[in-house]
Amino acid sequence: MIRVAVCGATGYTALELIKILLRHPQVQITAVTSRQEGSPSISSVHQSLTGRLNLRCEDLSPEQIGERADVAFCCLPHGASTAVIPKILATGCKVIDLSADYRLSDPAVYEEWYGEVHTDPTRLGRTVYGLPELFASKIPGSELIANPGCYTSTSILALAPLLAAKLIEPTGIIIDAKSGVSGAGRTPKLNTLYSECNEALSAYSVGKHRHTPEIEQVLGDVSGQKVQVIFTPHLIPMDRGMMATIYPRLTRKATQAELLQVMRDFYANKPFIRVVEHLPSTKDSAFTNFCDLTVRFCREQLIVIACLDNLLKGASGVAVQNFNLLCGFDETTALLPA
Amino acid sequence: MIRVAVCGATGYTALELIKILLRHPQVQITAVTSRQEGSPSISSVHQSLTGRLNLRCEDLSPEQIGERADVAFCCLPHGASTAVIPKILATGCKVIDLSADYRLSDPAVYEEWYGEVHTDPTRLGRTVYGLPELFASKIPGSELIANPGCYTSTSILALAPLLAAKLIEPTGIIIDAKSGVSGAGRTPKLNTLYSECNEALSAYSVGKHRHTPEIEQVLGDVSGQKVQVIFTPHLIPMDRGMMATIYPRLTRKATQAELLQVMRDFYANKPFIRVVEHLPSTKDSAFTNFCDLTVRFCREQLIVIACLDNLLKGASGVAVQNFNLLCGFDETTALLPA
Amino acid sequence: MIRVAVCGATGYTALELIKILLRHPQVQITAVTSRQEGSPSISSVHQSLTGRLNLRCEDLSPEQIGERADVAFCCLPHGASTAVIPKILATGCKVIDLSADYRLSDPAVYEEWYGEVHTDPTRLGRTVYGLPELFASKIPGSELIANPGCYTSTSILALAPLLAAKLIEPTGIIIDAKSGVSGAGRTPKLNTLYSECNEALSAYSVGKHRHTPEIEQVLGDVSGQKVQVIFTPHLIPMDRGMMATIYPRLTRKATQAELLQVMRDFYANKPFIRVVEHLPSTKDSAFTNFCDLTVRFCREQLIVIACLDNLLKGASGVAVQNFNLLCGFDETTALLPA
Amino acid sequence: MIRVAVCGATGYTALELIKILLRHPQVQITAVTSRQEGSPSISSVHQSLTGRLNLRCEDLSPEQIGERADVAFCCLPHGASTAVIPKILATGCKVIDLSADYRLSDPAVYEEWYGEVHTDPTRLGRTVYGLPELFASKIPGSELIANPGCYTSTSILALAPLLAAKLIEPTGIIIDAKSGVSGAGRTPKLNTLYSECNEALSAYSVGKHRHTPEIEQVLGDVSGQKVQVIFTPHLIPMDRGMMATIYPRLTRKATQAELLQVMRDFYANKPFIRVVEHLPSTKDSAFTNFCDLTVRFCREQLIVIACLDNLLKGASGVAVQNFNLLCGFDETTALLPA
Repeated sequence: MIRVAVCGATGYTALELIKILLRHPQVQITAVTSRQEGSPSISSVHQSLTGRLNLRCEDLSPEQIGERADVAFCCLPHGASTAVIPKILATGCKVIDLSADYRLSDPAVYEEWYGEVHTDPTRLGRTVYGLPELFASKIPGSELIANPGCYTSTSILALAPLLAAKLIEPTGIIIDAKSGVSGAGRTPKLNTLYSECNEALSAYSVGKHRHTPEIEQVLGDVSGQKVQVIFTPHLIPMDRGMMATIYPRLTRKATQAELLQVMRDFYANKPFIRVVEHLPSTKDSAFTNFCDLTVRFCREQLIVIACLDNLLKGASGVAVQNFNLLCGFDETTALLPA
Repeated sequence: MIRVAVCGATGYTALELIKILLRHPQVQITAVTSRQEGSPSISSVHQSLTGRLNLRCEDLSPEQIGERADVAFCCLPHGASTAVIPKILATGCKVIDLSADYRLSDPAVYEEWYGEVHTDPTRLGRTVYGLPELFASKIPGSELIANPGCYTSTSILALAPLLAAKLIEPTGIIIDAKSGVSGAGRTPKLNTLYSECNEALSAYSVGKHRHTPEIEQVLGDVSGQKVQVIFTPHLIPMDRGMMATIYPRLTRKATQAELLQVMRDFYANKPFIRVVEHLPSTKDSAFTNFCDLTVRFCREQLIVIACLDNLLKGASGVAVQNFNLLCGFDETTALLPA
Repeated sequence: MIRVAVCGATGYTALELIKILLRHPQVQITAVTSRQEGSPSISSVHQSLTGRLNLRCEDLSPEQIGERADVAFCCLPHGASTAVIPKILATGCKVIDLSADYRLSDPAVYEEWYGEVHTDPTRLGRTVYGLPELFASKIPGSELIANPGCYTSTSILALAPLLAAKLIEPTGIIIDAKSGVSGAGRTPKLNTLYSECNEALSAYSVGKHRHTPEIEQVLGDVSGQKVQVIFTPHLIPMDRGMMATIYPRLTRKATQAELLQVMRDFYANKPFIRVVEHLPSTKDSAFTNFCDLTVRFCREQLIVIACLDNLLKGASGVAVQNFNLLCGFDETTALLPA
Repeated sequence: MIRVAVCGATGYTALELIKILLRHPQVQITAVTSRQEGSPSISSVHQSLTGRLNLRCEDLSPEQIGERADVAFCCLPHGASTAVIPKILATGCKVIDLSADYRLSDPAVYEEWYGEVHTDPTRLGRTVYGLPELFASKIPGSELIANPGCYTSTSILALAPLLAAKLIEPTGIIIDAKSGVSGAGRTPKLNTLYSECNEALSAYSVGKHRHTPEIEQVLGDVSGQKVQVIFTPHLIPMDRGMMATIYPRLTRKATQAELLQVMRDFYANKPFIRVVEHLPSTKDSAFTNFCDLTVRFCREQLIVIACLDNLLKGASGVAVQNFNLLCGFDETTALLPA
């Protein structure tokens, strides 16, 4: 049994993570942490866990976490991870970090997009980017895995096969992305109130969303070219689900059938990628770790469509997928059958 | 033209109020107030007002409000109204208060339910309760009108005809009430986040909701008996709309047709009450000032159903209805046609 | 491995059933049936099953079903089950029927509420009612199990402990019930269109919902008294989840703590019942087979609250729970951890 | 008073139209038609109209419509309009057609996209396209007005100023469009059921949506160039609201401020166009006849964003705007204040 800690357990990704880990036959959750006063039980923080996990949310030090767990999932806010992760790693405990803190390889890019100097820059560029469909081989043996962002995974999984095959231009790729509201987190804010989001649709962070450099970095790594995307996120009045409608420019003529085949070949034996012929709904992959991909043409314009569950394949599901690879379990343990 | 101020302009009731007042041919909105820093334009606080109202949210003193306006609508939080209303009234400006501060007639009852000593107790019991279907005659000439709560109006409008006619027992009346989320206000809180409310249904404040004494007081006044209700509110995943499913005990045998006729007679010439034969949906009255009422039987048990828009007939619509009566305008001005 | 058929595979309960069965280590789904033309693949009927189940929806005869399967789950519309189930049973295949056809024990009651003469009346009264928390001992060895209705299970699970203990009066029990829209099925109808249900709340079938006699029959069996309920269902704008807010009359004084303990004792060792102290949200049990129960008082009035997922604990989850008991598997197989 | 008929009164656009017309001081609704059996009252077809309009839905002939009305609004399905409109026009009654039947100027284009030969081709090309912000001068005196489609108006209003000023390339314009579900009509279909649309997001009709040629035709007319768009519609889980996120290629360098000014100048004195600096939400214009427009840059890529209410500015609101211009009333009558 692997002893697992969930750090920052009060948010939605932590909740989904805990639910998956409870189904994992090789996992014992030994600690859940938060800075809330009074060490509330996890089931008072997340009522849905009543009767399912009998632990208190403790304000543990990194050292205590390392003592209690073999692997720690960090669900802390961006910026908070670097404060604790080096100390957890120092205890020999491995870490899967769901924040953005270790995703970018260049500290200057981090500073540009996050507005702060990175406090653990030597680990940037050396930390594996936890998108197993691309980097599975690098995961076993890692001490730290940077779990990808939700928009990032959606965009990368849609584009990687076509960029790797040089079938599309690496620049000017328009990504019109749409996310359910759970992606915005559980901290009360005006713009995520029910009465603001419900019956409402809007774009946000246009031209400055922090997943942009992450998408470009990973797609650049995959294709060996400088990639540049036009990324526009929208908030959709639904809990879960994410969709990217992507408009790349082809480098040569190609058919829908040909491109679908390129995708199928690229993702052969990847259990969570479904290359489909129909137009997927986000509901098809909601509450699963699947990512649905397809392509269409409108006149000569290629359109790539990707759907996944932002909290699962976009966060906690892929985190467990990474955990499985890290620990030598089957990649699908606790994730399939969905 | 009546000069009107809207105090506490950042919430949802204030927004709806402003929209109605903009349609009112006899109204000029001369002030909107809030304590926000920097006097933001009302259209930056409520984007939907862009191009519709060109005013800044100012942090005005009660005296300044009284100078600028003939009538002030107070949309302040419960407890904050008593701090400013006496001073506004002192300037000769009339006030329609959308908070609960002046609704109860007994300071002891106020203290019991609100946990605070009332700071303007001499006005309790002398302030008209602004439910025009019952108290229209008392409104003209008032300096202060206590605008009713949304659950309160829904429950009272449903029950008043039957209690007044002594057709139902005054005690043990079960009111199973359901409200859209906008009724919970615009202050960011965990329990009104989209991801908490959406795809979720729950009861709340069971046995202790503050609209309880208000319902009992007014129904007692209407029927000359001590009324006691069992009031259970539920939060429904929708923006707007409120429904009460009410289970009273009949004092004698009666038919559906007879009871509907009692209701129709009671509300004859009341333009906003629709006694209907079908089962109403909250959507039928959403975005209007109508209240839909019907009755059904399940075996011998009477069931009274009432629907209205919690922000309009339950708050800002009835406030303008009160305003119309106060100022001598037709009761339906700016409210009908809906 | 148990060979399983899902009959009537195009609806929502069938979809959820298939998803659970795919997680069941002892199940092989060998047939999915529907009367759709052209034997479409199940993944074209339910896109979410793409890559998860590779079967065609066939229009199989009862005999063919019996040949292919050891157990058949019938998700046919009410009335259609009796046409095929006797023939399936004749082949030796066992049946779990999710329709209402075999739930009532009295053919006359069936005829009264369903408006049709029952065509297989000799099985009524002899068929086990598949609510395992009450009738688990009768399930092993049965050839046919009548899987309960969703409103029915919610109401019965909430009331059985109190009625069995004679703590509440058996008549005049007010059940104000609320259901997500998925309970209304997948056949296109005006009243289940998105634009009709969204941002809308309404009561329906007041005084005549068909789950009424089912609730009364089972609660009568449990408590040895004639039970009579006032049942009012409401449609809530959400996919999944069901809540009953129940107002029974106590037979004697009792405290909240005492009643919660009665419930806990009644459901000791029942893995899917959570007697909780907080007010449950339907979201807490959504996508699980749990039923959350609590009690509150409003003045002297007892209020019992029950929440469950209408498609799982209210339909397909409990069906698999029955299946597990029928086949001698652990009751929680494929259902827990949730 | 203008006598008005609403033909095809059972759908959502008809309902919204009737609500607006009831607020119009110069309108008397004299007929509402449908082919439903038994001439149901309009308030039984649309419960929300109870007490607001006392008419029956009659199955009137075109001649009867012409006799009863001065202006007929046709809310019939595409294809059905051409069967009745010529006969209504023959009576001297004017027609505002909300279907697509008279929007395209070229019968061959109609046939290509609608799959049928147009049965009244001589009126194509001669019928005014009822987008008043562009064609207001042609509307007075017309006998027939082709009311625009919702996606069409959204796209055209966003792009017309920039195309007219030759600031963007006329081809390859990517329009990623999102619509609330009410745009899909009130006829029961699987894909517009609540349980299919709720918590779901999908693209549909990719590469073949019928609003495509309409957008291209009108933008071509406006700018004197052949325009070609890549149009991708998405279904959003909300009742009302439409948004287009548009990615055109600039013909020369330009700033956000400059482009906003071009838009403001183009729409000077257009009361329903709001060129805004903030990122609009569809909720800002919901239940109004406003269209909100803005522009952003993501790197060098221009992004134009347009929001409106698909049933109002996208259908029935603009229809009344056309009606006002047709009859010589102020363009904003019954539409402003919103």
